[in-house]
Amino acid sequence: MEPLNTAMTEPVKPALAASAAPVQLGGGEVALQALPGIPDIEPGDDLARLLIESLERAGMALRDGDILVIAHKVVSKAEGRIVRLCDVEPGAEALRLAAEVGKDPRKVEVILRESTRVVRAVKRAQQSEGTLIAEHRLGFICANAAVDESNVGSAETVILLPEDPDRSARRLCERLERHFGVRVGVVITDTFGRPWRMGLVNVAVGLARVPSQVSLIGGRDAFGRELSVTVPALADELAAASGLLMSKDGKTPAILFRGVDWQPVHSRARDLVRPPQEDLFR
Amino acid sequence: MEPLNTAMTEPVKPALAASAAPVQLGGGEVALQALPGIPDIEPGDDLARLLIESLERAGMALRDGDILVIAHKVVSKAEGRIVRLCDVEPGAEALRLAAEVGKDPRKVEVILRESTRVVRAVKRAQQSEGTLIAEHRLGFICANAAVDESNVGSAETVILLPEDPDRSARRLCERLERHFGVRVGVVITDTFGRPWRMGLVNVAVGLARVPSQVSLIGGRDAFGRELSVTVPALADELAAASGLLMSKDGKTPAILFRGVDWQPVHSRARDLVRPPQEDLFR
Repeated sequence: MEPLNTAMTEPVKPALAASAAPVQLGGGEVALQALPGIPDIEPGDDLARLLIESLERAGMALRDGDILVIAHKVVSKAEGRIVRLCDVEPGAEALRLAAEVGKDPRKVEVILRESTRVVRAVKRAQQSEGTLIAEHRLGFICANAAVDESNVGSAETVILLPEDPDRSARRLCERLERHFGVRVGVVITDTFGRPWRMGLVNVAVGLARVPSQVSLIGGRDAFGRELSVTVPALADELAAASGLLMSKDGKTPAILFRGVDWQPVHSRARDLVRPPQEDLFR
Repeated sequence: MEPLNTAMTEPVKPALAASAAPVQLGGGEVALQALPGIPDIEPGDDLARLLIESLERAGMALRDGDILVIAHKVVSKAEGRIVRLCDVEPGAEALRLAAEVGKDPRKVEVILRESTRVVRAVKRAQQSEGTLIAEHRLGFICANAAVDESNVGSAETVILLPEDPDRSARRLCERLERHFGVRVGVVITDTFGRPWRMGLVNVAVGLARVPSQVSLIGGRDAFGRELSVTVPALADELAAASGLLMSKDGKTPAILFRGVDWQPVHSRARDLVRPPQEDLFR
């Protein structure tokens, strides 16, 4: 419990100290802070250890109720979820789609391996490369089944989502809780495009303890009337908020949230995937 | 400049004071705080005045770079964007759709008046009332063209989006800037469902100064490689983050953000609407 005692007595950054005050539902304050000095992650790196070291270098200790939001790329890299394109043999479907959208057949092959179906194949004049809107094997519908090049050391490699992002989140969460002796939450994010709206936002692809959604069904509004279905996607609110501090140069892949009103649950990011038959919007 | 001088000398809440330190791109801290004691808003209320009084009661003064994120409902109420259903005469199309989805024809009539088209009419067994996915006259695609009952004084009234949410945001922004003598941003939000993902998130429906998106095209990643298109939807990141402190009982409709790295621009929330021909996802 030494770390816990230290956490309670050591000075922490004022922004976080202030927001550590009890938070009422829908009131109070939330503080976000980027973990400093996270190095470029290599396969096999102990990410939990690197996160702990970053926190302690900054004189910060996790507290009960803190939530760490982490870009999937550092998790995927640490887990070695990197594919060298020279090792990939594209199949017939990959070659066909690659020709259709103007894309490296080896990349398309990797995308197909990560997908259950291709929702749409898109090639536009102004794009150097086409896009495959695909349903990832975990159910997420996104560009190129979340297979990404950016921030991987060599242009000849691509990076995948973790094999099981919820499991990755739980493992990181357990390590952080053991070290600091507190109860925290972890959200692993990726950056998705959206139908109908421009620009990219981070969404949750892996969860530990943090509810995917908070059901306010049966709650009451300011006039005491029972609310109809109101189900905020808490995990996606946290993911999107992390984008305010996650630089796209990959140097700040982990954001600490303090002051969020939440209750730990057993959660899965795939609970954020809308079942097709329930999707009002398609 | 009295308010400005006061702002610089008066103590402010530590969470905000701490995050007022210069923030580097992708680094530093962001603090969110719910404005306390915003009363139930009535048509004709001076919302800017009520926001200023809430800030000053809390001993807070806006600073350069602060962003106020405000739920559209208080803006719509102050602007009298409330319709009494007893005043609504449903037309033939409203009567037809109302029968199809099981909805009050008068509500459907209001939804049609706010819409350019109905994308989909949905009626489900477990729902007491159907839903019309509609394209709002401002381009947003959402449930019931953003026509809402919740938090309106009487069950016989519905509330609409402001007539021009960008103009509403600009007017609030000008009042706040004049009072505090600083440059700030305003985001007006509504709560939308999403294709493919469960749960609701707040999105930006009105903007003043805050960029809808931040283009990182041509930036470089951690390895110095030029980034492909990376365009975070900053306004929607702020909107979603505000959901962490906006209680659904309507008592905390305004959230102050401090520490966000942004540059004021002339912006419009409709720039977040993806042109159909550019929508990869449909």
